[in-house]
Amino acid sequence: MPSPFEDPTRQPVTYRPIGVIRTPFIEQENTPIQGIFNSACGTVEVFPEYEAGLLDLEQFSHLILIYHFHRANTAVLRQKPFLDVQKERGIFAIRHFNRPNPIGISIVELKGVRGNLLDVCGVDILDGTPLLDIKPYVRQFDHREEVRSGWVDEQHVDDIGEWNSTPEALRQRGRVNL
Amino acid sequence: MPSPFEDPTRQPVTYRPIGVIRTPFIEQENTPIQGIFNSACGTVEVFPEYEAGLLDLEQFSHLILIYHFHRANTAVLRQKPFLDVQKERGIFAIRHFNRPNPIGISIVELKGVRGNLLDVCGVDILDGTPLLDIKPYVRQFDHREEVRSGWVDEQHVDDIGEWNSTPEALRQRGRVNL
Repeated sequence: MPSPFEDPTRQPVTYRPIGVIRTPFIEQENTPIQGIFNSACGTVEVFPEYEAGLLDLEQFSHLILIYHFHRANTAVLRQKPFLDVQKERGIFAIRHFNRPNPIGISIVELKGVRGNLLDVCGVDILDGTPLLDIKPYVRQFDHREEVRSGWVDEQHVDDIGEWNSTPEALRQRGRVNL
Repeated sequence: MPSPFEDPTRQPVTYRPIGVIRTPFIEQENTPIQGIFNSACGTVEVFPEYEAGLLDLEQFSHLILIYHFHRANTAVLRQKPFLDVQKERGIFAIRHFNRPNPIGISIVELKGVRGNLLDVCGVDILDGTPLLDIKPYVRQFDHREEVRSGWVDEQHVDDIGEWNSTPEALRQRGRVNL
């Protein structure tokens, strides 16, 4: 059995940010936990050397942003999710940022493209977050029918519209079950 | 203005694989371009030291796998997508693997959890792909209504069910518009 240093599947990978995400959220405590619950807007600044890669992006109503949780704390394997403080879950069964690899994904609404700047809404991302990739959100690829969403289904977050989903607001509510 | 070496948003980030993805696909040419079009199954092998992070994952019917395109070629900023060879698009408006940061995402169906092994179907991933993260696919977070999917909407891939979406099959068709 090869040592971890020889096994190619164990080799670390290094990425360089392609941009930075600007949002109104400068504190983790006041950053929404999911974009679907809020209409806050921000700007994705793609570094100029990548601007050519944005061609035709404006045809899409939504984007998937992939970014580095630059202010994540020590990774853990189990954690209580913000939406349900009753019970610890495996880190891979929740979206918390304290993950072994602190990679975040957000689906945001694309409002416009101005050169290397993308105006987006429905952001749940800290200001200054390094951007790693942008993918078009494609209904034909990304929707799944008959989805079972485990512990999230028990939190009754369907059809609640816009609400304050920041960690601070969730804490003030005492319990997070709605 | 700080040099790129001082700007914190420009700092490279390094991740360590948390596992490896095993699939029937050993050649890029014969790997489906999207999981939604096929029912092939595979196994996600999470390295044993991360197994504790899988708690409660079996409650979810679908997962988002985030992985490293370990056999991507040189990154480009514009490319013809597999589904439409008529026209080059910006790399951020398509899902092609030759991206500045070769990060892939796939939504797969979770069939079962056996210790550190996840049985998944609907895979569009090369065998041996290094896994970086797993997130639960959450209907309440990941569905968007009134989605406009740009050039993909013109390819008429809705409701076509299962079909051979490998690059080789698409090439044999001569043109990819269905």
